[in-house]
Amino acid sequence: MPTDKAKESAAIAAVDEHINANVHIIGIGSGSTIVPAVKKIAEMVKKDKLDLICVPTSLQARELILSNGLKLGSLIEYQELDLAIDGADEVDEQFNCIKGGGGCQTQEKLVAICAKKFIVVADEKKWSKNLGDQWKKGIPIEVLPIAYKITKKEIEKQLGGEVVVREGTEKLGPVLTDQANFILDWKFDSSKVSNWSDINTKLKLIPGVVETGLFINMISKAYFGNSEGKVQVKTNSSISS
Amino acid sequence: MPTDKAKESAAIAAVDEHINANVHIIGIGSGSTIVPAVKKIAEMVKKDKLDLICVPTSLQARELILSNGLKLGSLIEYQELDLAIDGADEVDEQFNCIKGGGGCQTQEKLVAICAKKFIVVADEKKWSKNLGDQWKKGIPIEVLPIAYKITKKEIEKQLGGEVVVREGTEKLGPVLTDQANFILDWKFDSSKVSNWSDINTKLKLIPGVVETGLFINMISKAYFGNSEGKVQVKTNSSISS
Repeated sequence: MPTDKAKESAAIAAVDEHINANVHIIGIGSGSTIVPAVKKIAEMVKKDKLDLICVPTSLQARELILSNGLKLGSLIEYQELDLAIDGADEVDEQFNCIKGGGGCQTQEKLVAICAKKFIVVADEKKWSKNLGDQWKKGIPIEVLPIAYKITKKEIEKQLGGEVVVREGTEKLGPVLTDQANFILDWKFDSSKVSNWSDINTKLKLIPGVVETGLFINMISKAYFGNSEGKVQVKTNSSISS
Repeated sequence: MPTDKAKESAAIAAVDEHINANVHIIGIGSGSTIVPAVKKIAEMVKKDKLDLICVPTSLQARELILSNGLKLGSLIEYQELDLAIDGADEVDEQFNCIKGGGGCQTQEKLVAICAKKFIVVADEKKWSKNLGDQWKKGIPIEVLPIAYKITKKEIEKQLGGEVVVREGTEKLGPVLTDQANFILDWKFDSSKVSNWSDINTKLKLIPGVVETGLFINMISKAYFGNSEGKVQVKTNSSISS
């Protein structure tokens, strides 16, 4: 599939550039683009005999680390990572991004804040001028199960739009995250948003909100592949290192 | 005990003033001061045949509602409460308060934001000029178990002081909240704090933080009892209704 080719190219380009003997502890993101990234990392570790510990952002990532024969670490052991590599649902020109289409944004954000560099890999359709131009499923927001009605109501009251409780297809009722919480998807008119940091603060301050899928200016570098395997690299000049 | 007398007087004064036939759904707080409050509510419901539903802020509160023969509701059924009555670990002259000595601050805050009036009952030692003058155990902060090391580190880095993971005495290792999260107690020099709202925002924005024990200007009215059973009532003029 062309999208697979696009994702794979981006993943491999990022891994090629960032994984080397100076890198010892890395964060492993979640999602389909991370699958070829971890495969490539495992090849390099084997070939170059690298000493690398991988900290997962989800149960999916943990399984991926183990099934590729890599060393598993955790945020309880390590709070300083040399690097984290992850996918994204959309990245805009200010290097803000939306994550959580797969419901893993909370652990993904925890890993990202611990990393000296946060690298994103995606197919080129994820790059946009402003958040919401491409991703139409809304901002994923992890909430406490006891609070899903209140948080839905408060978000709609404070910020407008419409909040939908994400439901599963393999389990009746709400999806549960790896932390056993619920996910709300908040749909709204993103063209009216001028300050995503402010939106993130307002969302996070609502009691019952555990974490949002808005990552504000955290990306150091983003790799976008296209269907022909060509990769565009975007560097965030506002983040040093 | 003089403190029991103080708590009981405050609780009864508040219930006497606020529970009547116009009140139908109320939030029930947690802690020792709430015990005489619920007992008094149950007496009034029986005597005056009131139609009252009680929404608990904790498993302790739920048990208290049931053991007093009151009707139990939840935040899934009700997001608009006529009133919530709760204790506090400290209340200052700006009506900011610290809650969570008993580890229930998250549900307590959820219930409080749903209530038209948030009433606090406590013994007089809980009233102070500035938060931290009386309560020396630190600000209780509920965090995700996967994030307790990161949140501890981030809080100390961003705001100074010292963060302690709260441990149990009836269970080895960290205390688990009713949401199965951990609690950090953040100790710091409170005399240097000029803006508690700002501190609350900074804490809440840290990934992994679920909720803080800082309640910023949410109290409508506070009742403080003394050992002789006398009750001082403080009304927050900045909150209407």
